Amino acid sequence: MAYPPRLTDEQYAALVSDIKDWQITHGSLLKLVHTDEENSVQCHPVGTTLFPTLFPKELFDEAHELQRVYNKLYAAVAEDDEWLLEVLKDLIDVDDLASALWDIYQEVKEEGCVQDLTLGIFRSDYMLHANPTESSQRPQLKQVELNTVACAGGVHTNVVSDMHRHLHRTNAYRSNHPASSGDVNIGSSSLPPNSTLKALSAGLAAAHKAYGPAKSQGLTETCILFIVAADNFNIVDERPIEYALWGESIPSYRVSWGHDVLAHTSLTPTRELLYHPQSRPIAVEVSVVYFRSGLEVHEYNEIGRMARLQLEKSRVIKSPSILSHLTGFKKVQQALTAPGALQRYLTPEEATKISRTFAPMYPLDDTPSGQHARTLALDPNTARNHVLKPSLEGGGHNVYGEETVAFLKQTPEELWRSYILMEKIIPPVLNNFMMSSRGFYEGPVISELGIFGVCLWKRVQDGEKLRAEMVSELDPSWSLRTKDASVDEMSVVKGYGCFDSPALVDWDIFMSVLKA
Amino acid sequence: MAYPPRLTDEQYAALVSDIKDWQITHGSLLKLVHTDEENSVQCHPVGTTLFPTLFPKELFDEAHELQRVYNKLYAAVAEDDEWLLEVLKDLIDVDDLASALWDIYQEVKEEGCVQDLTLGIFRSDYMLHANPTESSQRPQLKQVELNTVACAGGVHTNVVSDMHRHLHRTNAYRSNHPASSGDVNIGSSSLPPNSTLKALSAGLAAAHKAYGPAKSQGLTETCILFIVAADNFNIVDERPIEYALWGESIPSYRVSWGHDVLAHTSLTPTRELLYHPQSRPIAVEVSVVYFRSGLEVHEYNEIGRMARLQLEKSRVIKSPSILSHLTGFKKVQQALTAPGALQRYLTPEEATKISRTFAPMYPLDDTPSGQHARTLALDPNTARNHVLKPSLEGGGHNVYGEETVAFLKQTPEELWRSYILMEKIIPPVLNNFMMSSRGFYEGPVISELGIFGVCLWKRVQDGEKLRAEMVSELDPSWSLRTKDASVDEMSVVKGYGCFDSPALVDWDIFMSVLKA
Repeated sequence: MAYPPRLTDEQYAALVSDIKDWQITHGSLLKLVHTDEENSVQCHPVGTTLFPTLFPKELFDEAHELQRVYNKLYAAVAEDDEWLLEVLKDLIDVDDLASALWDIYQEVKEEGCVQDLTLGIFRSDYMLHANPTESSQRPQLKQVELNTVACAGGVHTNVVSDMHRHLHRTNAYRSNHPASSGDVNIGSSSLPPNSTLKALSAGLAAAHKAYGPAKSQGLTETCILFIVAADNFNIVDERPIEYALWGESIPSYRVSWGHDVLAHTSLTPTRELLYHPQSRPIAVEVSVVYFRSGLEVHEYNEIGRMARLQLEKSRVIKSPSILSHLTGFKKVQQALTAPGALQRYLTPEEATKISRTFAPMYPLDDTPSGQHARTLALDPNTARNHVLKPSLEGGGHNVYGEETVAFLKQTPEELWRSYILMEKIIPPVLNNFMMSSRGFYEGPVISELGIFGVCLWKRVQDGEKLRAEMVSELDPSWSLRTKDASVDEMSVVKGYGCFDSPALVDWDIFMSVLKA
Repeated sequence: MAYPPRLTDEQYAALVSDIKDWQITHGSLLKLVHTDEENSVQCHPVGTTLFPTLFPKELFDEAHELQRVYNKLYAAVAEDDEWLLEVLKDLIDVDDLASALWDIYQEVKEEGCVQDLTLGIFRSDYMLHANPTESSQRPQLKQVELNTVACAGGVHTNVVSDMHRHLHRTNAYRSNHPASSGDVNIGSSSLPPNSTLKALSAGLAAAHKAYGPAKSQGLTETCILFIVAADNFNIVDERPIEYALWGESIPSYRVSWGHDVLAHTSLTPTRELLYHPQSRPIAVEVSVVYFRSGLEVHEYNEIGRMARLQLEKSRVIKSPSILSHLTGFKKVQQALTAPGALQRYLTPEEATKISRTFAPMYPLDDTPSGQHARTLALDPNTARNHVLKPSLEGGGHNVYGEETVAFLKQTPEELWRSYILMEKIIPPVLNNFMMSSRGFYEGPVISELGIFGVCLWKRVQDGEKLRAEMVSELDPSWSLRTKDASVDEMSVVKGYGCFDSPALVDWDIFMSVLKA
């Protein structure tokens, strides 16, 4: 069977026109920041697939189920600074971002934490992995990474998913092409509704409520504060969350990372964080700080560190806290694959469930496992099947396949330990069409499913130890990004990937399309 | 008292940034059609005011009340072809659009009309008129024109109105400026919610429902068909109506004016209109045709005439019908100001109410009134206070003030009768800020309030005559457009005007701002 359905030229033209109009009307757009002037600005549609991409329903459901385990795991790790230091200490020595964050954590810890709640907004990314030598075997979920800070794409996917379902109901996917009789026709029930925007705003609202009334004298109002990047071309992925919160009568403001944080916020002696809006003479007490910036090392110059320190010291609920931020480092992901690591936090059953989604991962340090990894990475024959990943979130700094050999040879050996080596995931290749400002693409594609986990946890003393106690948790929601199968990097904002939504199908359909 | 409130420079910068982000996120945009390529297209925000513009609450309410009378009047006129012919016959002789429409009407009438329902989607435009010599007198509503076809701006205003209310609740209008203490502070109750999008889609849905089930053999489904302009840069004002109808499970499609109408629709022997979508082998019966094009004379070439004729002959409910389209000609507006004209259709009380909104208007024909108008129009001293208007909708072809003298001298006298002369409305001048791709503006502004009237009426036989019987009518809704006071034309899409929303105030505040 074939998918997506073959359309006539006239149908493709109409589909493309319908997509552009939907995107313009629903803000599925990127700002062209260089055109930003006082009076106007230009923008263009974000990359999108023309059709939803096929995805096995069973694995989509499984990824959702797993998310509660991942929430539990990453909340627990974020309250275990002992284990985290053990895992990250080599990295802290050589990596400026890790050391900046750890220093801030140390300074706050010395003064004592005044907020025991943390809001996690995680996104666990998966690709399908198919054994290339066994084409009849069903693909499995393999985790690419788990992001713990500034997880993006939720709003964009939500809009593109709504668009695919709209196009489906208008029959834009129903082919008039004479050769279309063998094509997979998806039903509307195959297209799951997306509620990521709602999940994000509901999570922030739950944290806001948990913070309770203003604590500083003379103030009655509280607000959520978004810490954003200045001159962001991707405001469409953030602003709707703010608007949704205002829609729930929760005041939400934004300040830019760094200087603006220091200029517009202050700490009271009892460590309430006050926001001083431009628009009024009195301050508002901040309940929740939501980071949509602060994940790049260049943001931690002196001003950036002071800003993050001020926020971290305060009584606000952070999304994420410094430690939760650090749990997103690849070293943590790799350390959790080591034997016995999961059992520290999970039941054996939970551990088994999620460890099935782990691809083989190694440190590049002096341990036996690290030595093994160095051998794999330096031999072109084995490097080919691996990806070298720095500890940063996202895939933008990865080194792929054989390039690893030359890369490592140019890199001082003492820095190698800041990388991990991951076995390449071999995704089954499907077909789709994509359009973005970079061009039009038709051909083999690879998708990445992101599962958003939104949860609020409390740090509790348990004997001599601290542990995380889940306070509230939202149903997981999803994002899907799809790229040209011949390109390694997924970044949508760089134009490599496109937003997408899944057409969920049973195994027999999925496997028969793979074989076609 | 002063309005809008004076802000600090930092506040203005934040307000402008907030506005651009809201516009991008909510599709308050225009397509840059010259950038439209297969894979992408650029767009930029439509012109908007920074603040809502002050408007007297009493007159806003009055305009809404009047709309039911205007609905009744224009439905009645649209069923009175005798009176219409009398009014338009001179025009039909010299004006290509009027004669094209009349010819189509004649042809349909000979074959017999098979649909007795018509959907009116009117927009009655008003300016405030203040007696320039009596500054203490309260301004009154004066009607600029009443549009009966392709009334635009409803969706745009809806979004900008939502934006102004959002900015208000975020305190973006609350000044930190030291000199702002004498400024008018508007409360949230001064900003009326806008439901124009809902009114437009509800009107179309009501007509769709009134059409009833499919009548042609073998078909079960019905749909609404939008007749649109190809390559329209203003799709944002149309598409959301379609999406809202789909949201109510009413299939809605669009075809471009002219050739596409003929290629994708057909008439059954019993005059059902069938739409043949690109996306499926079977046809859908059309319940309602909604014209968002077909109001310019160049659209009535042979293909355009055939297209309109096919639609008009069919059983669909039209919005508007040909006759209802013709009632929007300025000659009709002028003829209704003649003594006794209103009494043909309205009660004396209703006639009195709406005639108060008429500015003095004259034909330019051979009648005594026309002779008087010629004298006024040819003398620069009196021409100054008048506007010369062709019969087309909109203000794009008007001739203003003293330019009339030279214009008429260049125009063959036999064509003069296609124009009307209207006394200039002298609006009170308020202040606001506007931004659009044309630039940033701060200073005196003039606003035009549009009241959308949405109503479904039935043609009924009443003795020897036909008359209109109202079947259903929606609550009126509004639009507001605002322009630089020194510019005559209001067109928003040309960048002269901006979308706006009213800040409704009592007379004492309004008058004190005028005097300041």
